[in-house]
Amino acid sequence: MRTAELVAIDERRLLRRLDELAQRGALPGGGLYRALYTPAWVSATELVSGWMKEAGLLVRRDEGSRGGRAIVTGSHIDTVRGGGALDGALGVVAAVEAVASLVSQLGRPLRILEAVAICEEEGSRFNTNFWGARAIADRIEPDEASRARDADGVTLADAMRGVGLDPANVAQAIRRDIDTFVELHVEQGPILEEEGPRLGVVRTIVGTAHLEVVVRGQPDHAGATAMDRRRDALLGASAMMLAIADVAREMGPPAVATVGTIAVEPAQVNVVPGLARFTVDARHSDNAQRTMLVADITRVCKVAGRERDLSVDVRTLRDRPAVQLNERAADVARRACLACGVAPRDMTSGAGHDAQVLSAAAHAAMIFVPSIGGRSHCPEEATAAEDVILGTRALAAALRDLAYS
Amino acid sequence: MRTAELVAIDERRLLRRLDELAQRGALPGGGLYRALYTPAWVSATELVSGWMKEAGLLVRRDEGSRGGRAIVTGSHIDTVRGGGALDGALGVVAAVEAVASLVSQLGRPLRILEAVAICEEEGSRFNTNFWGARAIADRIEPDEASRARDADGVTLADAMRGVGLDPANVAQAIRRDIDTFVELHVEQGPILEEEGPRLGVVRTIVGTAHLEVVVRGQPDHAGATAMDRRRDALLGASAMMLAIADVAREMGPPAVATVGTIAVEPAQVNVVPGLARFTVDARHSDNAQRTMLVADITRVCKVAGRERDLSVDVRTLRDRPAVQLNERAADVARRACLACGVAPRDMTSGAGHDAQVLSAAAHAAMIFVPSIGGRSHCPEEATAAEDVILGTRALAAALRDLAYS
Repeated sequence: MRTAELVAIDERRLLRRLDELAQRGALPGGGLYRALYTPAWVSATELVSGWMKEAGLLVRRDEGSRGGRAIVTGSHIDTVRGGGALDGALGVVAAVEAVASLVSQLGRPLRILEAVAICEEEGSRFNTNFWGARAIADRIEPDEASRARDADGVTLADAMRGVGLDPANVAQAIRRDIDTFVELHVEQGPILEEEGPRLGVVRTIVGTAHLEVVVRGQPDHAGATAMDRRRDALLGASAMMLAIADVAREMGPPAVATVGTIAVEPAQVNVVPGLARFTVDARHSDNAQRTMLVADITRVCKVAGRERDLSVDVRTLRDRPAVQLNERAADVARRACLACGVAPRDMTSGAGHDAQVLSAAAHAAMIFVPSIGGRSHCPEEATAAEDVILGTRALAAALRDLAYS
Repeated sequence: MRTAELVAIDERRLLRRLDELAQRGALPGGGLYRALYTPAWVSATELVSGWMKEAGLLVRRDEGSRGGRAIVTGSHIDTVRGGGALDGALGVVAAVEAVASLVSQLGRPLRILEAVAICEEEGSRFNTNFWGARAIADRIEPDEASRARDADGVTLADAMRGVGLDPANVAQAIRRDIDTFVELHVEQGPILEEEGPRLGVVRTIVGTAHLEVVVRGQPDHAGATAMDRRRDALLGASAMMLAIADVAREMGPPAVATVGTIAVEPAQVNVVPGLARFTVDARHSDNAQRTMLVADITRVCKVAGRERDLSVDVRTLRDRPAVQLNERAADVARRACLACGVAPRDMTSGAGHDAQVLSAAAHAAMIFVPSIGGRSHCPEEATAAEDVILGTRALAAALRDLAYS
């Protein structure tokens, strides 16, 4: 087996830049929200572009194939609402750092080497997640930009125009020239921290189904309607949410199911809710098991509805199968970890990542570093500085292997 | 016992006016939302003023005592969000009809006789319910108009200015000259429809506590956090909401408890909710039982929180005791019902009403007519036309008794 070689990186700059990027979209009460095409997002892309220029890289935006087979590294620059400083951001900052270090120490690579900041992985603003990675992989649906709207009713197309981008040019982002995509990311779970080692290489990314459940009962006066005469949609939804969690628990790891959003109508303190609407995020690394998980969730919602004389509609918003990442690219990542002195753990990612979408267009690999307390998508999201540095070293070693030999 | 005398009313005009008023604030999908100080509300007050003028009444607004002991009838003109055409509106339209009929048939009354349209009984826009009745009864808190805000952050004071009212003049609405207040209202429950008779006279209005429950857990990534490592605030809230309904069921009628609103944070499909916030509306006609109901609700929330490692805060937003209406005024209402050929049922109102606030400043009485299916606070809220007419006749007979003899 070929061995990888170490690359020195500027550790202080790496950590300082992570902090700088975390100022873009910082919320007053802690945590971040760097939503697609907002001023915070624009400011973050400008910051990253500046770093790239400083490293002597050619900076460009949404430009497609140019011949040659490129080695690409990066991650996403948007965050969930109230998210942390590392999800996506680590992969972007580390990408710039690794590429800059390689270029400054080894000069021009043998292959095209790129650092990318991909937009809208989370889908927090427009519910169109992997927008950036799907644009690169030619997976955008026709008219998607004019159909998708944020909570204020702004279309994705108008938001693009608002930051000087033309939605008609989305196809320019398509890339057919990427040989290998390597993404460094925080684990977002507790396994590396609790069980070690300090580096992981992802083999599988779980499949994710998003469902919308609408429960219809009867709105009634909260004072004048006896308890046994009610058809309370929120009480029904409560029973369903508990049953959904039980379904995932009974199926056992890695099955997870989450109700992350809920709304009721008419939403008045003194009115029995006549309608409740909630989302379910259900995941499993095995596609057949994920299908069974979704079927069981649908069944327990219907049963709870029948027991309470409520009508229940369950609609699939999206259903993405599990993805096996490329074995050859994973071998490169493993060798790079070994060069850093760590025999990495093979991981299944419970979270979705740009790499899973780009795996349709390139050999994709992912390296994980530990998340403190397994926390992510929250202000407390953190990784020890030595693990940030270790992960960036592993990334640089992998890129050296891919682009300089 | 003195008997009451019948008054002829213009039945077609009464029903037509109910329909006309129901156009003000009608929602495109059915139901109404006539929120305080909105264009729909302004339009409704202008419509009612016009009817009053047409009847030859002196129309005035927020004007206080002027000597004499007045006989006043009316109800409120605002609605809940997605409410029906009769809650409040019936009492206003019937008041104008009854007073107009009396004046046209019997001439000038012996006592001052007034029809009023009271604002903001429901508290749907500013969560300051009984705003109008409390202004009349001198129960407004200092600075309440500048502290109360609607969902858009508009203060009650600014909303008043927006429709040409001066919040500094709220005290002008104080009345110390009301002898008797009579309110006609739909039952909003099923008793009169199912058990008869077609008229009720209210003896007691239940006490109502409004609580806010805040559940704090830990926001986490929906894919990367195993089920047994979560502190999901919404799952905890689900268990609490089911337990709260059980508490009210076990206490038995007339105890009711309702969770009418809920919100979670960060409210993302792919994030485990770290915070859930919901309201509880808890009611009982017996004050000691209501206190026990609130204590039991608080206890089951704390227990469910402890079982799931969640912190739980329960805050009382308001707590209004049950109110006994005036017996002498109720006797007048009973005689009026008997004059219409109906021996009325003594009722406990599960809903709050302006009459309960005005009972602090006057002898207050309420007459109920049946609600079809017991439905209220919903677009389906309805009362048979013959019951609308019957109730208005009873109201007119009571006013004749009070103001003409």
